[in-house]
Amino acid sequence: MLLFGGDYNPEQWPEEVWTEDVALMRQAGVNIATVGVFAWSDLEPEPGRYEFDWLDRVLDLLHEGGIKVALATPTASPPPWFTLAHPEALPVTADGIRLSHGSRDTYCVSSPAYRAAARAVAGRLAERYAHHPALAMWHVHNEYGTDCRCDVTAAAFRLWLQKRHGDLGTLNEAWTTSFWSQRYSDWAQIAPPRATQYMPNPAHVLDFRRFLSDELLDGFIEQRDLLRAANPAVPVTTNFVQGGWVSVDHARWAEEVDVVAVDHYPDDAGPGAEEQTAFAADLARGWGGGSWLLMETGPNLIYTRGRMHAKEPGRLTRHSLGYVARGSSGAMYFQWRQPRGGAELFHSALVPHAGPDTPVFREAVALGRTLRTLSPKAADAPPPAASVAVTWDAPSWWALQGPGLPAADIDYLAAVRQAHRALYRAKLQADFVFPGVSTALGDYRMIVVPQLYLVSDEAAAAFRDYVAAGGTLVVTYLSGIAEPDTRIRLGGYPGAFREILGVRVVEWHPQAPGTVITLEDGLAGATASAGLAASSGSVAFSGSVASAGLTAERWIERVETAGAATISRYADGPMAGAPAITRNRYGAGSAWYVSAGLTDDSLQALLRQVAAEAGAEPVLPGLPSEVEAVRRGDLLFLFNHGDQPATVDRVTLPPGGVRIRSADGVEGPPVGRG
Amino acid sequence: MLLFGGDYNPEQWPEEVWTEDVALMRQAGVNIATVGVFAWSDLEPEPGRYEFDWLDRVLDLLHEGGIKVALATPTASPPPWFTLAHPEALPVTADGIRLSHGSRDTYCVSSPAYRAAARAVAGRLAERYAHHPALAMWHVHNEYGTDCRCDVTAAAFRLWLQKRHGDLGTLNEAWTTSFWSQRYSDWAQIAPPRATQYMPNPAHVLDFRRFLSDELLDGFIEQRDLLRAANPAVPVTTNFVQGGWVSVDHARWAEEVDVVAVDHYPDDAGPGAEEQTAFAADLARGWGGGSWLLMETGPNLIYTRGRMHAKEPGRLTRHSLGYVARGSSGAMYFQWRQPRGGAELFHSALVPHAGPDTPVFREAVALGRTLRTLSPKAADAPPPAASVAVTWDAPSWWALQGPGLPAADIDYLAAVRQAHRALYRAKLQADFVFPGVSTALGDYRMIVVPQLYLVSDEAAAAFRDYVAAGGTLVVTYLSGIAEPDTRIRLGGYPGAFREILGVRVVEWHPQAPGTVITLEDGLAGATASAGLAASSGSVAFSGSVASAGLTAERWIERVETAGAATISRYADGPMAGAPAITRNRYGAGSAWYVSAGLTDDSLQALLRQVAAEAGAEPVLPGLPSEVEAVRRGDLLFLFNHGDQPATVDRVTLPPGGVRIRSADGVEGPPVGRG
Amino acid sequence: MLLFGGDYNPEQWPEEVWTEDVALMRQAGVNIATVGVFAWSDLEPEPGRYEFDWLDRVLDLLHEGGIKVALATPTASPPPWFTLAHPEALPVTADGIRLSHGSRDTYCVSSPAYRAAARAVAGRLAERYAHHPALAMWHVHNEYGTDCRCDVTAAAFRLWLQKRHGDLGTLNEAWTTSFWSQRYSDWAQIAPPRATQYMPNPAHVLDFRRFLSDELLDGFIEQRDLLRAANPAVPVTTNFVQGGWVSVDHARWAEEVDVVAVDHYPDDAGPGAEEQTAFAADLARGWGGGSWLLMETGPNLIYTRGRMHAKEPGRLTRHSLGYVARGSSGAMYFQWRQPRGGAELFHSALVPHAGPDTPVFREAVALGRTLRTLSPKAADAPPPAASVAVTWDAPSWWALQGPGLPAADIDYLAAVRQAHRALYRAKLQADFVFPGVSTALGDYRMIVVPQLYLVSDEAAAAFRDYVAAGGTLVVTYLSGIAEPDTRIRLGGYPGAFREILGVRVVEWHPQAPGTVITLEDGLAGATASAGLAASSGSVAFSGSVASAGLTAERWIERVETAGAATISRYADGPMAGAPAITRNRYGAGSAWYVSAGLTDDSLQALLRQVAAEAGAEPVLPGLPSEVEAVRRGDLLFLFNHGDQPATVDRVTLPPGGVRIRSADGVEGPPVGRG
Repeated sequence: MLLFGGDYNPEQWPEEVWTEDVALMRQAGVNIATVGVFAWSDLEPEPGRYEFDWLDRVLDLLHEGGIKVALATPTASPPPWFTLAHPEALPVTADGIRLSHGSRDTYCVSSPAYRAAARAVAGRLAERYAHHPALAMWHVHNEYGTDCRCDVTAAAFRLWLQKRHGDLGTLNEAWTTSFWSQRYSDWAQIAPPRATQYMPNPAHVLDFRRFLSDELLDGFIEQRDLLRAANPAVPVTTNFVQGGWVSVDHARWAEEVDVVAVDHYPDDAGPGAEEQTAFAADLARGWGGGSWLLMETGPNLIYTRGRMHAKEPGRLTRHSLGYVARGSSGAMYFQWRQPRGGAELFHSALVPHAGPDTPVFREAVALGRTLRTLSPKAADAPPPAASVAVTWDAPSWWALQGPGLPAADIDYLAAVRQAHRALYRAKLQADFVFPGVSTALGDYRMIVVPQLYLVSDEAAAAFRDYVAAGGTLVVTYLSGIAEPDTRIRLGGYPGAFREILGVRVVEWHPQAPGTVITLEDGLAGATASAGLAASSGSVAFSGSVASAGLTAERWIERVETAGAATISRYADGPMAGAPAITRNRYGAGSAWYVSAGLTDDSLQALLRQVAAEAGAEPVLPGLPSEVEAVRRGDLLFLFNHGDQPATVDRVTLPPGGVRIRSADGVEGPPVGRG
Repeated sequence: MLLFGGDYNPEQWPEEVWTEDVALMRQAGVNIATVGVFAWSDLEPEPGRYEFDWLDRVLDLLHEGGIKVALATPTASPPPWFTLAHPEALPVTADGIRLSHGSRDTYCVSSPAYRAAARAVAGRLAERYAHHPALAMWHVHNEYGTDCRCDVTAAAFRLWLQKRHGDLGTLNEAWTTSFWSQRYSDWAQIAPPRATQYMPNPAHVLDFRRFLSDELLDGFIEQRDLLRAANPAVPVTTNFVQGGWVSVDHARWAEEVDVVAVDHYPDDAGPGAEEQTAFAADLARGWGGGSWLLMETGPNLIYTRGRMHAKEPGRLTRHSLGYVARGSSGAMYFQWRQPRGGAELFHSALVPHAGPDTPVFREAVALGRTLRTLSPKAADAPPPAASVAVTWDAPSWWALQGPGLPAADIDYLAAVRQAHRALYRAKLQADFVFPGVSTALGDYRMIVVPQLYLVSDEAAAAFRDYVAAGGTLVVTYLSGIAEPDTRIRLGGYPGAFREILGVRVVEWHPQAPGTVITLEDGLAGATASAGLAASSGSVAFSGSVASAGLTAERWIERVETAGAATISRYADGPMAGAPAITRNRYGAGSAWYVSAGLTDDSLQALLRQVAAEAGAEPVLPGLPSEVEAVRRGDLLFLFNHGDQPATVDRVTLPPGGVRIRSADGVEGPPVGRG
Repeated sequence: MLLFGGDYNPEQWPEEVWTEDVALMRQAGVNIATVGVFAWSDLEPEPGRYEFDWLDRVLDLLHEGGIKVALATPTASPPPWFTLAHPEALPVTADGIRLSHGSRDTYCVSSPAYRAAARAVAGRLAERYAHHPALAMWHVHNEYGTDCRCDVTAAAFRLWLQKRHGDLGTLNEAWTTSFWSQRYSDWAQIAPPRATQYMPNPAHVLDFRRFLSDELLDGFIEQRDLLRAANPAVPVTTNFVQGGWVSVDHARWAEEVDVVAVDHYPDDAGPGAEEQTAFAADLARGWGGGSWLLMETGPNLIYTRGRMHAKEPGRLTRHSLGYVARGSSGAMYFQWRQPRGGAELFHSALVPHAGPDTPVFREAVALGRTLRTLSPKAADAPPPAASVAVTWDAPSWWALQGPGLPAADIDYLAAVRQAHRALYRAKLQADFVFPGVSTALGDYRMIVVPQLYLVSDEAAAAFRDYVAAGGTLVVTYLSGIAEPDTRIRLGGYPGAFREILGVRVVEWHPQAPGTVITLEDGLAGATASAGLAASSGSVAFSGSVASAGLTAERWIERVETAGAATISRYADGPMAGAPAITRNRYGAGSAWYVSAGLTDDSLQALLRQVAAEAGAEPVLPGLPSEVEAVRRGDLLFLFNHGDQPATVDRVTLPPGGVRIRSADGVEGPPVGRG
C-alpha cells in the first residue's frame, strides 16, 4: 500500500486536538504518521526521568484509527538539561564558538556524553514500543548533518585519518602538506579545519567532510543496531536531506538503511520545482537501488529566496504523484498540523492555522482517495526503467565547494541538475550512478558525467571498460581532474579521462557571468559521415550539433585533440577556432567531451542528439514540451505542467492535471487548474 | 520659551575656545546646551577621583551667558579604567565574544559593578549641580539600547521571566517549547538567545527584547530617582533614539520620563526626510501625550546609505520648524561644534570645522531669531489636533524582525511609515496610538492598523468597542495574527480582528520584489450605494476605490468574506477574482481589511476615501501637493517642500520656504531657496 | 644581467622532478630561483631537528645548472608543531578568536616565542648557506602583513606608543580621547583595536596600523642583520605586497632593504592590467629610489573578482617587459611549477599541470631569449626619467579606510591609480614622491596630490617651497585635511594647502554612485589671458579646461576662493555656479585645486593641459592611444596594447606586440597576437 501521511507532533497540542487529528487523518486517508522526531524533552524532561504515558496514548489512538506509526528517536535535539549536564558535548564552530541549545541539532556527534544519552533514550523507546501494533518503521534522528570542530571531534578525526591513510607520511603526501609548511610530524598536530589566517588546504577540508559523514553514520548505526535487536522485523531508516551544507554521503549511507527515505524541499517556486522533483526522485531511487520513500516535503508551500510561496491548486497532487511515479513507496509531508509557535510556526502543513476548511486540506483529502485507488497497482510496481544515467558523487561536490578553485562560483549541484534537466526535457528517463561508491555502471546506452572532479583509478577503469564495450560517455569540463585525495592528475586535463576522450586540455578560461561564447561547426562533413546528420526527427538541428548555434557561459577551455574528432569549434572568444566539443571512438563505444559551460538549450540539443545516436529512446515519442511522462511498472503517469490543456494519445490533460494509464485504461485524478 | 541649542562638549577643546563658544551661542540665540553626555573619563579619570573644576567653569560660563544647561549623566560610556577594574561588566555578544572599550555604550546594564559605578558618578553630579542656576534639566545617559548576552544578564533575564510567566509550565506553554525539544525543566536552563545551530525560538527572542527594554529602564529609573531626590524641581529625561536595533519600548518608557526627548536622524536625503520628520514628530508627540522635545538632530547633514549629504540651504530651518509645528518644545542639535577627532569627527554641527563663517552657522543665527520671535506664541501652544491615528507597537516590530516568518523582508517600520506617509500626503494630521500599552483609542474618526502582528485580547476588545461605537478601522495584512507571546490565533487570519472585519484569510502569498498585482473593482454598485461614489472632490477616483486601478506589491492573500462586503478584487495574479479589500459594517462603525501590500499611491487613494467617508478633514482644503500645513494652537505653519513658489490663501511661499500665520497675521521667516 | 625566474618549491616534488626542472629552466633561460619560502616544516620537521640534506641537493643541482638562488627564510609559515609548543604565539583577531595553523602567515609577530623560533631557523640557514656559490640574495619571510590583537601585541603597542607620544597626556590630546569618554589614565588601559560596541577611534586605529608596520619591520631587521652578519656581500630583501589589508608602509621599509622587491598581481583582466603594471612599477621604482626587482607576478593568470583569467598569448611577454622598461632588474614569477595540491593548487605557473608542452611555457622560452638579448643594454641602464610625479602615502590610505568618514566608499588607492592613469594615458612618464617619509619633492614640472589626507607641517612647508620656487601643484579634494594624528586642520578645508591654493572649502557634498555633475567654464577670458588657450596641440579643448565639458562623480564641494582664479565652475547640481577647479599663482609657481571627483576623461584632459602649461612633455609626441612608450637609458620600449597593428616612427607593432629600440636600431621580440 502506498504510504500517505507525515510528521505529527501531538506533544505540541492539548489532548482534545489529538482526537480531532485522528478523525481528520481518517477523513484524508492518512495511513502513517511520523511521531516523536523532536520529542526528547517531552520524553525525558529530566536526565533519566522518562514520560511515556502521553506517547502511549498517542500510539494507541493512532492504532485505533488504523494509522501506522514511523516512530522516531528524538536524538536530533537534546533537551536543555543536556547543555547544563554536558557543556563539552555542544558543537564548536571553526571560529571556536561553542553553540548553545535554543534551536535543534545542537550536539557534537563525537561526544561520548551525547552518544550515551542518545543510546539511552533510543533504548528506552525500543524497549517500550518495538512490538507496538502501530509501529511500521523506526525513524532514527532527523536529517543528520551537524558539524563540530571541537577537540573531541579532533581526536575522532585523527583516528579516522589513521584508518584512511595509515601512516603520517602517506597523509603528508596525500595532502601535499609541504605546501605552506604544513607537514605534520605528529598526529596530535592535526585538528579539524579551524579559523586560520588565509586559505585552508583543500585536502584537509575534504577529508574532514568525509570523516564527518562517517562519524555521523556511526551514530546512526549504533541506534539502528539497538532498534533492530529489539525487533528485527521492523525496518529502520533515517531521513536524508539534501543541501550544500550537509556532510553526509548518501550514496554510502544508503547501504546501511533498510529503506532510503528522503526529505525534499524544492527551492524554486516556478517550473524548476517540477524539474527538481524529478531530479530528487531519480537520485533517491538511485540511492535506494530502485526503491525509496518520500519522507518529507512541504504540502502547500515552497520556500525559496527568503519567501514562502503558496503552491497553486493541484500542485500538491502533481508533486506527490511525481514522486510516486518515480518509485516512491508513498507520499509523506512535513507536517500534519501547523504549530502555534516555535521557529517553524509558518512552515507548511496539511492542516494549516486556518484549520481543515482550507484548500490544502481539501486537496489532501482528494489526493488520499487517489493514492488509495492507485495502491493496488502502484505499490509493488517496479520503478521506472532508464536507458541513460548521470553520475553523482558527494566528495566531488565537496571538493568543488573547497578553497583555491579557478572560479569561486563553480557549482557542482547546478551542473548535475542541468544535465538531468536536459534529459528530463528531452523526455529521457534517467538513473543516477555513483562511481565514487561503486564501479558498476550498468548497461545504460549513455552516461553523462558532469563535473566529476574526483575520480579514482578504479572508477576511471570502469568508465574505460564501459566505453570499450560499446557505451556512450559524455564528459564535461572539470571531470577527472584529481585523484580522490584532491591531488591533480598531471599532464593535461581531464587526467582520468584523457585517454578515452582523446583530448588534452592545457588551459582553463573561466568566464564572468553574462559573457556568452558561441560555438560553431567546423567539421560538418565529418560528423555527417559519422551518421549524425539526420539521426532523429526530434533533433532540432542537423549536419552537426553546432550548425544551429550552440552557446556557452561560465567556462571554456583550450582543448587539443589527440585522436578525437572535433564536433564543434569555438566561434568567438579567446578560443575562437579551437575544438569545443569532441567525440572519440574508443573500442566499441564513443566518448564525448564538452569543454564549455553549455547553456540549457545547447546542452539539451547535444544530449538529445548523442542519446539518439546511442539508441536511447524517450519515454513516449512526440510528447508536448509541458507534459512529463513516467512509466512505473504497467502504469504510465502523465503530468501536464503547463497552463493550457494538452493531449497525449487521445488522453486530455487539463492545465496542471495528472492522468495515470494502466494496462486496463485511463484512471486517476481529473485534477487540474482549469 | 522654545529651546534652541544642542550637545556641547567643551572637554574636547581648550578653554579659549569655550569663550568663543559662548559668544557664538549668544550670537545665534542659543538658550540651552546639553553638557557632559560622554564626559565620564574627564569627570572621573580614575576610580573614585573626580575632576569637577572644569565643569564648574563651563556651567558658570554658560550661566553668565544666559544659557541654560541640560546636564547629562555620563553613564553611556564607562572610562577605560572601568574595563580593567570590571572585565565582567563588559557586554558579551550572542557569539560569546566579550567586547572591549574603545567606542561608546560598552557595558552590561545588568552588571552590579556597572550599576554601582553609574550610580556613583550620577550621585556626585546630583550632589554638586542639582541647584546650579544654569541647570534646566537632567539628561540621563544617552540613547539607551546596548545588548548583552552574558551570564549575569541570563540571571536577570530569568528573574524577569519568573515575574512575567510565574511558573515554568506557563512559560513552556507560552513559548511552545515542545517544538524542537526545548522544554525547560529548570529555570537555570534558560539563557539569553545565543549562537545556536539553527533558527531560534521567536518567543524566546521576543521576550529577551522585552526584558532588555525593562532592564535598561531599571537602569534609568535608578538614576532618575537619585537626581529627583537631589532637587525635585528639575525635570529628568533621557534621549530616545529610533532604529531597528534598539531594545527599548519607548511607549512604555514615556511613562517614566518627565519630558519625552527624542533624537531624530532622517535616513533619506530626498523628500523622505520631510516625511520622516513628520513621522518622528507625530510619534514622539504620541509618546509624550502631546508634548515632547527634539533633543538631537543633525543640523547640516543627513547620513544615509554610507554617505553624509549636506543639507540644502533652508532645510535646517524647515526641519527645525517642522518639529516645532508638531509639538516640540524646541529644536536641539547634535552638535554645537564639530570635533577635531574621535569616531564622529565628521558628524554634523552648528559650528563646523570651517568655523562660524559658513552657511550652516549663518542659517542657525537666522533660525535663532525666528524661534525667539515665535516663542511667545508657540512655546505654550497646544499641539496639533488630529482626527486620524495610526497604531504603533514595538513588540510587534520586534516580532516581525524575528525568525521563521513567511518572508524575510517583512518590514514593520516601513509599513507604519507608509501608512503615516499616505495620511501626510493626504494632508491629514495624524496621531499615534499604542494598543500594546494602553487600550485607550481616543475618539479619532479613523484608525489605521498596519501590521499590528501581536494583539492581546484586551486590545482586540478595545478595537471592537471603538468600531461598535462608530469608529472607522482600517486593518492591513499581518495584523492580529498572534497573541502577545507570539502564539498564533487559530482558525484563520487575522485572528484578533476576524470578527469585526467579517473575513477569514486561509493562505498567504508573499510576492517577490518587483512583482506587481493589480486590483480591480467587482462591486461598483455595492460601494456606490454605500455612498462612496462621490464622497469627496479630493478623491482621485469614483465609483469604488478600485476603478482607477490599485496596485500591490510584496503581499497578497486568499481572503474569504464572512459578512464583509468586497470593495476591491484581485484582477490578476494567483488570487485573481478573489476579494482584496473589504469593508464590514460592525455596530455603528466600519472595519476595512486590506489584504494586499498596496503601493504608496494606492494606499493613499484608499485612505483618502475612507477618511472622507469617516468625516476626517485635511488640515486645509486644496493644499498644493508640495505644501505641508500644520496647526499648533493658533498658529498655522506652512512649509513649501517644492522647488517652485507656492501660494496658499494669498500667502506666497518661496521654494523651500516656511511661513507661520498666527491669529493676527502672517509672520515668520521669509526663508527659501529662491 | 636581467634576472629571470621565480618561486621554486622542490619540497613538494619527488627528486626525479628536480632534474627535469633544472633542464626546463635551462631551456627557458631561467637564471634565478627563489627557494624555501614556505619550507619551514620540511627544514625543521620537529622543534630543533633540522633536515638540510634535501636543500643541499637542490642548491647544488641549481648551481650545476648555472641557476642562482634567492634563498628564503621560511618564517612566514611556522610548522604545525609550533602551534602545539606555543599556542600563545598564534594570532588573535579583533573578536578575540585565536587562529590555528592550517594555512600560512599564522603567527603573532610580537610573540617572543615566534621571534626566537624565526631567528633560530634563519640563523641555521645563514650558517649553512651564506657562502653557497648559488646564493644570489636572501629573501626574508614572505609578504609581511599579518595582524594580531593579542595581549602580547598590546604590550608591544604600548611601548611603541610611549616612544611616539611620550606621555599619556600627549596621546590623549592626539587621539581626542575626550570624545566618548576614552581618556586613558594609565598606559595599561590601551589595547589594540578590538571588538567594541560601536565605531572605534580613527586615531587609535591608525596608530595601530603604524605600529604594526614598525613591529613587522623589527622582525625583518632582526633576520636581515643576522643574515648580513653571515656574509655581508649577499643582499637581503623581502617581497613587498600591495593590498588594502597590508599593514606595511613600504616607503619606510624601503630604507631597510638592500633591494626593493615587489610582488605584483593586477586585479583587472582587461586593459586595467597594463595600467596597473605601469602603476606598480613606477611606485616600486619610487620606493627603490630608481632601482627595484619584480619578485613575483602570475605568468599566465590574472585573478580578479573570484575568477582566474588566463592571459592571452603575448601578454606574459608584454607585462614582463613592461616591468623591465620601468626599471625592474628582471622578471620573476610565482611560480615555476604548478603544485598538485595545497591551497594554491590552481595558482599560475610557468610549468602548469599540463606540463611544458603548453602555451605558457613556450612563451616563457621565447621571453627568456629576449631577456638574454636585452640584458647587456638594459641591466644597468638608468631607470625612466620623469618630469611629473604623484604623491603616495600609506598612512593617508589607512586613515581613509578608517571609521567615521563622510562617505564609506572613499577609495584612496583608486584615486591615486586614477591620477597615475591619467598621466599614463597622456603618455607622461611619472614618478612617485612620498611626502610622509621625505620632504624632498624633486624638481618635477608638476606634482599631482590625490587625496593626501594627512599632511604634516613639514610636508606642507615643502609643498609651499616647491610651488614658490616655480613648481606646478595639482591638489585634489580630501588632501591636507588632517595632521598626521588625524586631528582635523580647522578653519576650512583643505587646511594644509589653503594658503598656497588660495581657496577655502566650507562644505563637502559626497555624491551617490551614478550621479554625474557637470562643470562648465565661467572664466574663459581669464584663463585665455593666462596663456592656457592654445597651450598645446595635444589638448582636446581650448579656451579653458571646462569648455569641452568636464564631468564629476562621487564628490563635489562648496569652494570659496581666497585669491585663486576660478578655472571651472559647477554647471549643475547643488553647487551650480560655484567654483569647481581653481588655480592660484603662488610665488613663481601655480597651485591648482580640484574640488570634484573628475571622471577619467576629465581628469586626463585637465592634467594634460596643466602639464603642458608646466612644460612637462610626453615620452614621444603623437603616440597612438593604444601604444605605451617607456625610455630606460638608451632603450625605447614600445608596447602595442591594442588589437590592431600600430606604427610609431616607421616601426610597426603587431597587435599585442612589443618592440625595443636602442641607440643602434630596432630589436627585440616580434611578439604579438597577429
